[in-house]
Amino acid sequence: MFNQKYEAYKGLMQKIKDIEYAVALLHWDMETYMPAKGANFRSQQMATLQALAHELFIEDSTGVLLQELLAEKESLDAEQLANIQLSLEDYEKATKLPIEFVKESSVIRTEAFQAWLKAREAKDYEIFSPALSRMIDNKREEARLLGYVGHPYNALLDQYEKGAVVEKLDILFKVVREKLVIFVKELHEKGKTSPKHFLEHHFPKAAQWDLGLYLLKQMGYDFDAGRQDISAHPFTTNFSPEDVRVTTRVDEKDLMSMIGSCIHEGGHALYEQGLPTEQYGLPLGSATSLGIHESQSRLWENNVALSLAYWKANFSKLQSDFPSQFSGISTKDYYKAINQVKPNLIRIEADELHYHLHVLIRYELEKGLMDGSISTDNLNKVWNDRYKEYMGVEVADDKEGVLQDIHWSQGLVGYFPTYSLGSFYAAQFFNQARKEIPNLILEIEKGNMKPMLDWLREKIHRYGRRYTSEELCEQITGEGLNLKYFMDYAEAKYREIYSI
Amino acid sequence: MFNQKYEAYKGLMQKIKDIEYAVALLHWDMETYMPAKGANFRSQQMATLQALAHELFIEDSTGVLLQELLAEKESLDAEQLANIQLSLEDYEKATKLPIEFVKESSVIRTEAFQAWLKAREAKDYEIFSPALSRMIDNKREEARLLGYVGHPYNALLDQYEKGAVVEKLDILFKVVREKLVIFVKELHEKGKTSPKHFLEHHFPKAAQWDLGLYLLKQMGYDFDAGRQDISAHPFTTNFSPEDVRVTTRVDEKDLMSMIGSCIHEGGHALYEQGLPTEQYGLPLGSATSLGIHESQSRLWENNVALSLAYWKANFSKLQSDFPSQFSGISTKDYYKAINQVKPNLIRIEADELHYHLHVLIRYELEKGLMDGSISTDNLNKVWNDRYKEYMGVEVADDKEGVLQDIHWSQGLVGYFPTYSLGSFYAAQFFNQARKEIPNLILEIEKGNMKPMLDWLREKIHRYGRRYTSEELCEQITGEGLNLKYFMDYAEAKYREIYSI
Repeated sequence: MFNQKYEAYKGLMQKIKDIEYAVALLHWDMETYMPAKGANFRSQQMATLQALAHELFIEDSTGVLLQELLAEKESLDAEQLANIQLSLEDYEKATKLPIEFVKESSVIRTEAFQAWLKAREAKDYEIFSPALSRMIDNKREEARLLGYVGHPYNALLDQYEKGAVVEKLDILFKVVREKLVIFVKELHEKGKTSPKHFLEHHFPKAAQWDLGLYLLKQMGYDFDAGRQDISAHPFTTNFSPEDVRVTTRVDEKDLMSMIGSCIHEGGHALYEQGLPTEQYGLPLGSATSLGIHESQSRLWENNVALSLAYWKANFSKLQSDFPSQFSGISTKDYYKAINQVKPNLIRIEADELHYHLHVLIRYELEKGLMDGSISTDNLNKVWNDRYKEYMGVEVADDKEGVLQDIHWSQGLVGYFPTYSLGSFYAAQFFNQARKEIPNLILEIEKGNMKPMLDWLREKIHRYGRRYTSEELCEQITGEGLNLKYFMDYAEAKYREIYSI
Repeated sequence: MFNQKYEAYKGLMQKIKDIEYAVALLHWDMETYMPAKGANFRSQQMATLQALAHELFIEDSTGVLLQELLAEKESLDAEQLANIQLSLEDYEKATKLPIEFVKESSVIRTEAFQAWLKAREAKDYEIFSPALSRMIDNKREEARLLGYVGHPYNALLDQYEKGAVVEKLDILFKVVREKLVIFVKELHEKGKTSPKHFLEHHFPKAAQWDLGLYLLKQMGYDFDAGRQDISAHPFTTNFSPEDVRVTTRVDEKDLMSMIGSCIHEGGHALYEQGLPTEQYGLPLGSATSLGIHESQSRLWENNVALSLAYWKANFSKLQSDFPSQFSGISTKDYYKAINQVKPNLIRIEADELHYHLHVLIRYELEKGLMDGSISTDNLNKVWNDRYKEYMGVEVADDKEGVLQDIHWSQGLVGYFPTYSLGSFYAAQFFNQARKEIPNLILEIEKGNMKPMLDWLREKIHRYGRRYTSEELCEQITGEGLNLKYFMDYAEAKYREIYSI
């Protein structure tokens, strides 16, 4: 429906988004093409634009406009109303934190990041500990300002995953702790490992790059609405649903690292490319949550691209791209080799099962830090004990222990669980897709990814933030998030691979 | 001197510049890496940010702050005072145009650009004529609003080149019309041309690209504070003095086109890299005028890189990069071949002498359009007649005639003269540099461009907008712009090459 006030709202939101997308481009450029000295003014430029966007949004007039629109809701259609309600939620959150608190938090973050860098360099948690302590105090104050029901951690979780609360996450992570921990131990102790020496060859950069582009294209990534570049850490960014870019890195000793990251980012990118362009700048034009975003990357990376069907489609391509490396290797050999799991120390290098043990530990620590049952004093010891307990691995120093992730130094507390939620949603969605899409596995075997993508577009992408993660999950699978699907997937797949 | 109010001014100016630099990056990206569909939202994003920067600057509070600072000028040092005075000038100009007029102008520009595109397609000036007529009316109104002394064209000229007025330009272009027109005719009719068939070989893209980078580096372009990429039309842009980027294009049939554009953009870029970083966002951190900017690109492109000394330094490199193309060719043969001049129809393809005949025609037409002595009716006929008169060439259709440049369709009236001013300043500066730098030509022959760059840094770059073009010229050469230096350069060089 045409509504002049709604158009004013839309104009304001698009203006803010235009600025935020410029920040995203400044960031993309910084990570890809910016010359070294460009860094000297880049952070300032990004901070200026970010602050401008924030200031525009939190103006009193924004609140007034939203309230007025809500009061006239009969003049809005369902999508317009959803946008207004979501923007009002965002507005209330954004205005709950006083400007003084925002500034103070920024200082605390800067100090924490500097301390974290130094501590890593020295492999010594003690250097980071006082700054982390201040950060946790700041996060508890933030939780108080934002407000919450139940556990203070809930206030932070909600920022990354609307509706996520410890009362729900405890149930999920209990399964991780009680079933997944046991299962991976069983694989490790009783399973039959498969040879993987052929993954340790040299894989030339140019051929890897071309393969990455080929696989992205096969997934349905639209290169007229995106591109791939090289960066130190792979990421996905976008400046509209019609300009969604991915980056990757190429390690000539590790083909699967490139393939995995390429498809992971591709999964994120397909979500962004699938958002409705007519909702540009508005909530319904944005992804619904980090967990659902991650579900898209993980579904493609794990459920699709670590499956036998996927390699039935693509292993001959691999053999022709890297003939000497893969001569005499069967598709099944390759499939088993890339699906070997093993306890390890570093989260970002973990396999698709152990990954959740890493997240479990962070979840437990964050929750304890927030309610005061765990102190930042000696947090490295607590960390190391849990790694020993859940994975049986010894942490040699703090750099490969409690200092490995950048998140806490950036004030990102409550973020980690979304990584696991992503995989859990992915397993549940993929299970549903198999029921609904005729011959899904056969289509993947033929290299036809379109039915998979069409289904995700239909069920998830086109809605933007219209539904929360849980609503989407109910709508698609008939029930809320249930770890049963992930565990079933894991057991079926790995018992077969490990011959147990 | 530290002054809190000055710091507030500096903060505001830097904030505005941060936004403008983000626009520059959005533009750079659009011309280099943006995927096709990215265009759909890009113009809107650029327009939003541009408008934001403009709105911030023209706020009443900006004027008040500047006036207050000016009233307390004893608390400012000379550089601070210069910044305030220049910002106040900018502010007064920016606030002279009522917002309604700015909006109307924007509509007129959009319509003119669309009409120009259609007219070019149809090679028919009549399609563009009504839109151009409205544009000229709009420009006359703009001149009235801005205010001027003497000719209305002066108000527009001043926007691109502070202090440029028809009273001065008439003197320069009279020399072009009366001496340069005669001189190039003499070369054409009586001169002895040199063979240039070896320029018509095939020059592979990769080798051209590497050569371009080599020559940029030799000039002193800092690749830690910049980079080169490919775009359809070469340009220079920057996001700080420490991130100054150039683009080029490579035509495998035209080596000199790449070399020329590479060095031309390199000259612009060296100016930007030489601006003082501590004046970031302020007038003294910006280039002083388009004419002086162009003097930097032309000095390197023509006075340096079309000289015999330059090729004494670089022709052996060319021979080793393109051995089959240049075997048996001497440095002198090459030098003569790249300096063959010839009347032509298209400005951007013109040689360094005929170029100014193209600008002369545009100058005469713009001046006549502004004072009403020339009408937009039948402007194509006037155009064609002047081309016949000054260069003896017949214009076959309007696309290669009056429709060839984008400028008028974009409202850029008064811009063309800066191209010629650039070359004229370049000749005068280079003449002075030869007097002041010991063995300048010998250093260039050795491939040592540092003395040249150091001199430009010392005399021009470091000042930003501290001095106007004319003040700089007086300061450097002891007199105002004088076409004698360009004519002397042209005569000495081309009489020798053409054996007259």
